[in-house]
Amino acid sequence: MASSAFISAAKVVVGLAVSGNGSPSGAHADRLSVPGGFALISLSGISLASSPTLRFPQQRSRQQQQRRRSAPARAAAVETLETATAEGLVEKSINTIRFLAIDAVEKANSGHPGLPMGCAPMGHILYDEVMKYNPKNPYFFNRDRFVLSAGHGCMLQYALLHLAGYDSVKTEDIKQFRQWGSTTPGHPENFETPGVEVTTGPLGQGIANAVGLALAERHLAARFNKPDSEIVDHYTYVILGDGCQMEGISQEASSIAGHWGLGKLIAFYDDNHISIDGDTEIAFTEDVSARFDALGWHTIWVKNGNTGYDEIRAAIKEAKSVKDKPTLIKVTTTIGYGSPNKANSYSVHGSALGGKEVEATRENLGWPYEPFHVPEDVQSHWSRHVPDGAAIEAEWNAKFAEYEKKYKEDAAELKAIISGELPAGWENALPKYTPESPADATRNLSQQNLNALANVLPGLLGGSADLASSNMTLLKMFGDFQKGTPEERNVRFGVREHGMGAICNGIALHSPGLLPYCATFFVFTDYMRAAMRISALCEAGVIYVMTHDSIGLGEDGPTHQPIEHLISFRAMPNILMLRPADGNETAGAYKVAVLNRKRPSVLALSRQKLPQLAGSSIEGVEKGGYIVSDNSSGNKPDLILMGTGSELEIAVKAADELRKEGKTVRVVSLVCWELFDEQSDEYKESVFPAAVTARISIEAGSTLGWAKYVGSEGKAIGIDRFGASAPAGRIYKEFGITAENIIATAKSL
Amino acid sequence: MASSAFISAAKVVVGLAVSGNGSPSGAHADRLSVPGGFALISLSGISLASSPTLRFPQQRSRQQQQRRRSAPARAAAVETLETATAEGLVEKSINTIRFLAIDAVEKANSGHPGLPMGCAPMGHILYDEVMKYNPKNPYFFNRDRFVLSAGHGCMLQYALLHLAGYDSVKTEDIKQFRQWGSTTPGHPENFETPGVEVTTGPLGQGIANAVGLALAERHLAARFNKPDSEIVDHYTYVILGDGCQMEGISQEASSIAGHWGLGKLIAFYDDNHISIDGDTEIAFTEDVSARFDALGWHTIWVKNGNTGYDEIRAAIKEAKSVKDKPTLIKVTTTIGYGSPNKANSYSVHGSALGGKEVEATRENLGWPYEPFHVPEDVQSHWSRHVPDGAAIEAEWNAKFAEYEKKYKEDAAELKAIISGELPAGWENALPKYTPESPADATRNLSQQNLNALANVLPGLLGGSADLASSNMTLLKMFGDFQKGTPEERNVRFGVREHGMGAICNGIALHSPGLLPYCATFFVFTDYMRAAMRISALCEAGVIYVMTHDSIGLGEDGPTHQPIEHLISFRAMPNILMLRPADGNETAGAYKVAVLNRKRPSVLALSRQKLPQLAGSSIEGVEKGGYIVSDNSSGNKPDLILMGTGSELEIAVKAADELRKEGKTVRVVSLVCWELFDEQSDEYKESVFPAAVTARISIEAGSTLGWAKYVGSEGKAIGIDRFGASAPAGRIYKEFGITAENIIATAKSL
Repeated sequence: MASSAFISAAKVVVGLAVSGNGSPSGAHADRLSVPGGFALISLSGISLASSPTLRFPQQRSRQQQQRRRSAPARAAAVETLETATAEGLVEKSINTIRFLAIDAVEKANSGHPGLPMGCAPMGHILYDEVMKYNPKNPYFFNRDRFVLSAGHGCMLQYALLHLAGYDSVKTEDIKQFRQWGSTTPGHPENFETPGVEVTTGPLGQGIANAVGLALAERHLAARFNKPDSEIVDHYTYVILGDGCQMEGISQEASSIAGHWGLGKLIAFYDDNHISIDGDTEIAFTEDVSARFDALGWHTIWVKNGNTGYDEIRAAIKEAKSVKDKPTLIKVTTTIGYGSPNKANSYSVHGSALGGKEVEATRENLGWPYEPFHVPEDVQSHWSRHVPDGAAIEAEWNAKFAEYEKKYKEDAAELKAIISGELPAGWENALPKYTPESPADATRNLSQQNLNALANVLPGLLGGSADLASSNMTLLKMFGDFQKGTPEERNVRFGVREHGMGAICNGIALHSPGLLPYCATFFVFTDYMRAAMRISALCEAGVIYVMTHDSIGLGEDGPTHQPIEHLISFRAMPNILMLRPADGNETAGAYKVAVLNRKRPSVLALSRQKLPQLAGSSIEGVEKGGYIVSDNSSGNKPDLILMGTGSELEIAVKAADELRKEGKTVRVVSLVCWELFDEQSDEYKESVFPAAVTARISIEAGSTLGWAKYVGSEGKAIGIDRFGASAPAGRIYKEFGITAENIIATAKSL
Repeated sequence: MASSAFISAAKVVVGLAVSGNGSPSGAHADRLSVPGGFALISLSGISLASSPTLRFPQQRSRQQQQRRRSAPARAAAVETLETATAEGLVEKSINTIRFLAIDAVEKANSGHPGLPMGCAPMGHILYDEVMKYNPKNPYFFNRDRFVLSAGHGCMLQYALLHLAGYDSVKTEDIKQFRQWGSTTPGHPENFETPGVEVTTGPLGQGIANAVGLALAERHLAARFNKPDSEIVDHYTYVILGDGCQMEGISQEASSIAGHWGLGKLIAFYDDNHISIDGDTEIAFTEDVSARFDALGWHTIWVKNGNTGYDEIRAAIKEAKSVKDKPTLIKVTTTIGYGSPNKANSYSVHGSALGGKEVEATRENLGWPYEPFHVPEDVQSHWSRHVPDGAAIEAEWNAKFAEYEKKYKEDAAELKAIISGELPAGWENALPKYTPESPADATRNLSQQNLNALANVLPGLLGGSADLASSNMTLLKMFGDFQKGTPEERNVRFGVREHGMGAICNGIALHSPGLLPYCATFFVFTDYMRAAMRISALCEAGVIYVMTHDSIGLGEDGPTHQPIEHLISFRAMPNILMLRPADGNETAGAYKVAVLNRKRPSVLALSRQKLPQLAGSSIEGVEKGGYIVSDNSSGNKPDLILMGTGSELEIAVKAADELRKEGKTVRVVSLVCWELFDEQSDEYKESVFPAAVTARISIEAGSTLGWAKYVGSEGKAIGIDRFGASAPAGRIYKEFGITAENIIATAKSL
């Protein structure tokens, strides 16, 4: 494209400052195009319009750099107006971000250009002027965290990481946007792209993750900061859109964030009035800011998010000054800003602009460059972040060395949280049980484990969605994490399962040594499944403490009784579904859960008392499946009975009866299918010899999936209907989850 | 208990009118006990205290009855103050409700007495003074709907149904509370207890169901009412508690209800400041009323929900006067009102009071009766609802007869919606395809079916969670259901999957002939799974249109690609998981979905184009699994290939190749496992002969579960990891979901 061609037509689409919650209907028709792209530049009195590369001589950019090199200077940038010329460079940088997004989506012919085009200004200000990070160490502990909750706009984040100098997003990676094996997948994924903090895309998850990140900061700051050393001190920024706002999970997380008063959480609500189905008028007309006021947030409205850079800066300054409340900055933007024919419409949300419209947008925004080009002055301007980032980290490291000298124990604990290294011998804290230990519900045994572990694992913290006294999740030696007591470790999530799960993902991804657990009734995993799936995908080792795990809960009835839940998690990739049968197995489940820091664990626990079984063991649980008892020899019993959790006891009873009748019977605990499937073929054969086809499984849940272990000739005893409201014993009997049924089935084989 | 013993000590615990959203901390300590049980009675100047049965002579009660017999008179009751004596009877009735709950929970030694004790006043006023219903026909079409969203307090509803004269809840049934086979399960279940509209317990579902019920009323009223005949005209009432309010689903449903301006939805928020973990101060301090203002609701605060009966009545009157907004009445109550030692504490939430406290509560509230006793005057007072209800229904029937004369076609359509009878020959509208029909994505074929069906099924309505243009769910002949156009049938749910599902449950349970469908990407069933499970449990025949059903969606990546979802629904009771492979199978899936009015259907549909296969059929889908092609004879092919949806094409290709090599190969479509499993053993053998053990399944999802069909010697080709972001073809290839892999696997068998 000739650089001279675009000048006369330079236009931008102005932001629609829609008033209040008012109707932007007719906005499409009213779209205005006015000259403006270079308005700020002309104020500087320097005529640069015909040669963009000349506009901001490197020299000026270097002066700028020097002014900004140290962290305090950068913070000051938020507080002072840039010169008009600097604003010109800002605009150029913003357009660089826009075009990197446009070009990447165009090349992939897939993706979402609209958000990056609209949010480029806030993205630029955050990464270039506000945030503290080290591009060469994306895991620098004290960095500010950024979450793009509206994850479909990921090209915004990739462009920013690229400009900031992260090695994970080179030009070549941007060219590979959404391609096999690239670091630039279709939505932000922390496990693919260092610099991305969490995994977003499913709407509303990111804001809840951000609440978790901010909680972690608040908690660690309260535990470790000293009057003379703020060793933990960072902000959490998040951009969320209309879609995130409509999701219930965002309400849950925002409500509890307001309750906790997480003052260092700053959320930008990209108020662009467009979602996939069109104008938000068709389904979303609530007053979002008023809602956040009601939730106890501080709210600010930036009316011109497209070009009101100072408005954005002032809002961030104001947000930082409010220390006892999280802040929502509603930023009214135009989706697809700059595209003359598609801006402010759903058509720019989730499709490539198309060659013609890309051209028109280049012309409109005065962009003469080749695709994927970062102008030199922009590159030069951003290049300071590598040395700046290194300096920031070095400064913190020096600070930590000082801290370590003064506060040795705290420093060691914080170090463990930062590194994720488990204290030597931690597993010795796990309680042990013998068959003589009293019968107990695994939910109670779970509490014994949690309390034992809290003594040795400095990063263990968590709680329940308003069922602490049923889930048995309270850590007795700690108080509640609350606004006034953020150093405590019992988290009260309220009845907000979905938010809870996503908050825990944020906590887990804040620091490798944070071990969040969270709890509800097992059936209510249905409320939080989307967050749990993301735990699995994003490798957040959250421990899900799920009690009341079957019809064994009795009277609450079918709405509360899980049936299909075990198999539904067994089928989910990268998550461990554990259903311990007694004390040793519960301890084993915790051992596995703590060790698997990149694979979340779901512990299904009983409401009802269970005996301590002979033969159960922690080591057995680590193998996923193992022989609990056997009266045969030569690896060829007459019958193999297998079960999990509360039904293992029933299998043991049936085996005892059958043995009395002279049969050789093996009882196998299949406490974690995923771990068992990972064992060697030899081990598997030692547990389930191919030659033994008489096999019966028993589990108070769906029989689906058990065919894998019982084989074509075996039988699965389970429940393939909904539960019922009655005392548990009665339901077990009516549903045939009994030793008698096992024995009868065994005889039929 | 001696009736003379309790008088002197008659006390009530006064309601705690906690100001604003302020802290009720210290409330336990400040609890006051003042004389009050009979304060209103003494105002009447009649001394009745020592003989409760004399207090309200039947004669007075009958006068009362006559004053109230007709519906208009009952409506007037809301508008005028009762006499003091009548208020005494009201209080006695309220205490009857309380003690039925107390006694039932005590006998079961399980349940939740706190809510019924606190909400008995609003419950009484609703069922005795406000609501329009016919106890002898719980399904009377034009009845007011009541939903107890805080379903754990179900004894409130059972007590009310009992007093009102519903046959489903006799004294004997209340005594069987939470027992095997009773009509009084631990949470309200519409399929167990006529008079209960929906199934609640999992928090937040009920308020969303209520939004669906109110939507249905609004829609049908707009379609069928005439200037001279309001043939559809009822209110929807709902009680929800703090738990419901904390759940994201309630925010989603409340936000869209405000958007739709559902003026006949009246929600009572039981603001008792207690949830299971204790005071709501620990996790829930948002300003709920301000939030609802922001959502576009009308809000009212009843400060004394314990004894402020006139306040409650006035609030309902005010709510009814606001016609363009739903109303939230925040009713501040005391949980466990009347229990001297447990009121206003979590201990009364979910456990029996215990014999001693029951005694103390009887004394405190002046209740001399045996457990489960309904005093004669109370019974007599309530007895009018049976004749009144019959009269209300008869009046409506007469009105409908008039309507039918004038508006024959509309009447026929409305009748079909009320009865659920499908129009004869409706299935002829289903589109048919031949192998020559153009290849197409099943999501597009789904839209053809939806549009064809909308022409013949008057009750079909629905939409998407902001993905209408991706899910292909728009009905082209209709506009949008909106505040100003409620007669239309395209529902815009916004990005609110969970609310959407529960709203559809409400629509489906409003009238048997309403067929709601709703849509999102298949992976986002994770956001709405709790509502889908309740569809299955409560027998709401919702049609879930779930597109982008595999890695075939390509670039959006693993956050958007379902893996474990098919099996997770196959394991869920009473729901049909259908994954059609082409046009005929999509039509078959819709046939099944429409016919299964008490079993919801999930349709997994492709984003990508698929060919029309030879051998596919609607009839085949109805059997769940069937032979698509076979070149063998004698029911003994060398190999059986099976698959579903987009992978069936791959199986067909592989079969073609293998046949070229001289093998006999059968291809089976297993489009719906649940239906196939219901077929006769003979049919199953005809599809999967036991003698043929060389079997391969292919499906772009978890392999778990397939062992059931491929057997111990077969192989399942699938995906047991998360997906990836790349063009779909590349992912298929990388993951081995290919004909080549089938062929190689076949050769290895």
